Amino acid sequence: MYDVIIIGAGPAGLTAGIYAGRLRLKTAILDKMFPGGQILLTESIDNFPGFPDGISAQELADKMVKQVKDLGVEIINAEVESIKKNSYFIIKTRGDKSLETKAIIIASGAQYKRLNIPGEEKLIGKGISYCAICDAPLFKNKTVVVIGGGNQAVEEALTLQRHANKVILIHRRDKLRAVKVLEEKIINNKKIEVIWDTIPLEFQGENRLEAIKIKNLKSQKENIIKAQGAFVSIGMKPSTDFLKGLLNLDENGYIITDEEMMTSVKGIFAGGDCRKKSLRQVITACSEGAICAHSAYKFLENNN
Amino acid sequence: MYDVIIIGAGPAGLTAGIYAGRLRLKTAILDKMFPGGQILLTESIDNFPGFPDGISAQELADKMVKQVKDLGVEIINAEVESIKKNSYFIIKTRGDKSLETKAIIIASGAQYKRLNIPGEEKLIGKGISYCAICDAPLFKNKTVVVIGGGNQAVEEALTLQRHANKVILIHRRDKLRAVKVLEEKIINNKKIEVIWDTIPLEFQGENRLEAIKIKNLKSQKENIIKAQGAFVSIGMKPSTDFLKGLLNLDENGYIITDEEMMTSVKGIFAGGDCRKKSLRQVITACSEGAICAHSAYKFLENNN
Repeated sequence: MYDVIIIGAGPAGLTAGIYAGRLRLKTAILDKMFPGGQILLTESIDNFPGFPDGISAQELADKMVKQVKDLGVEIINAEVESIKKNSYFIIKTRGDKSLETKAIIIASGAQYKRLNIPGEEKLIGKGISYCAICDAPLFKNKTVVVIGGGNQAVEEALTLQRHANKVILIHRRDKLRAVKVLEEKIINNKKIEVIWDTIPLEFQGENRLEAIKIKNLKSQKENIIKAQGAFVSIGMKPSTDFLKGLLNLDENGYIITDEEMMTSVKGIFAGGDCRKKSLRQVITACSEGAICAHSAYKFLENNN
Repeated sequence: MYDVIIIGAGPAGLTAGIYAGRLRLKTAILDKMFPGGQILLTESIDNFPGFPDGISAQELADKMVKQVKDLGVEIINAEVESIKKNSYFIIKTRGDKSLETKAIIIASGAQYKRLNIPGEEKLIGKGISYCAICDAPLFKNKTVVVIGGGNQAVEEALTLQRHANKVILIHRRDKLRAVKVLEEKIINNKKIEVIWDTIPLEFQGENRLEAIKIKNLKSQKENIIKAQGAFVSIGMKPSTDFLKGLLNLDENGYIITDEEMMTSVKGIFAGGDCRKKSLRQVITACSEGAICAHSAYKFLENNN
């Protein structure tokens, strides 16, 4: 029987592991892939406090993993299929194994939606990004493309124009789905150009992004735009399918918690990108992981 | 005119500076002391993700300062006396200077209350600590004393007994002011001894804490306890006096915000130890600093 099982070994799950380990809880972290999570999609992390020269995502993940393992926390490669609640919790994983635990921390993350077009997979972190607030400064004086038309895409374009020389917003429709004040800023900004009724077909470039092939949906005409950066801004999907029916999720599948990271089920806590909130960053994920562990600890102290 | 002025250069203020700088906001950080804040009271920080071998507080502060300065953010030595709100904000500092800004982030921190007895100042970080969740693992198999009798002190004692050999709780009264379930755990725990009706008079030790002189308030008898660690747990005081009448504070002076770190005054945000919340850690402070900067940025985008 574990004190706490953490689902997901990204920054939130690993930091929860650090805190749970230091609180001497019997702890395991489950991940279906390898530790690190979504950050492994970025080349370098420059906005994590304490690393003035930036740090590669892999190196940051490795450091956190070492920190967790030094504390005696297990990291287990396993995919969670279901969670059952008795007087304690039973976590069933793929391959029909089951683990028992008194508390659970969900840090299963979220994934940026992909366009799923040629060149995308290959050039992620090499010009293609999914988060302007993370990566915008890398594109100083460059030309970048933003793909999308919602609030998120419009905000990304506005953030990017502070750094880039030129920002091209590509949207499949003939109007934006963003709040008025932001839309006006886009339209009035000389550095931002909007290409309407258009979708991207292919990302081109050998080692880094060089150009994007696009197609106008009205004229069916194809074209090629030169750009050093592309921000795909068509939404995120939290990895929470295995929680449906167990926890309160919002309409997009994000887990609803209070400020102590407590979910609608007593003894289950959630933090990081899978949680309903406004800012998804490595530092906010880590913080929520710490709060999860602390809340789980208080829960165990008060219920055992 | 600044876009944003950050008050306080601890982890919250410095991370707010990193994020504001990366968002290319014209930013200054004011601090009445030197950058680093409360963390400088600890020897080593072992629970900050990314540093598996721990990092000295001074080094972590230095790294964050470099990160902030590299982004062109100013750090100004100044003590804030008052804030006035017009269509923008006017910050008056000691020596009658004033600074104009469109948004403010308050990260002025909080201070652990001191006992103000001989030896305390000298041995802080050398056996004397104010935060068990931060420092408990340093006292593995040692004897530690906790001073206080509220929930916080009782929780500290329970956390410490997971690491220490023996925990002695010293309380000035003859009963605790903690919730029942925690109190019972204290009383029933063989590793924890409670010394009632007693106050500490002096911390003794040359380079590290070695003993504590105590006095029983009923018998007036003095005694000396050998201990390698002492946790002073008599509360915290946020540095928010200069905000009274301007912002909503709770009964202890902590700033009340929503999850986006917005205070009761539009355009003023607050994060870190000065904010009303449950877990005060370097990582949570950093996260809130990032959220403050992001919220200030959205405020500026929507109001200018």
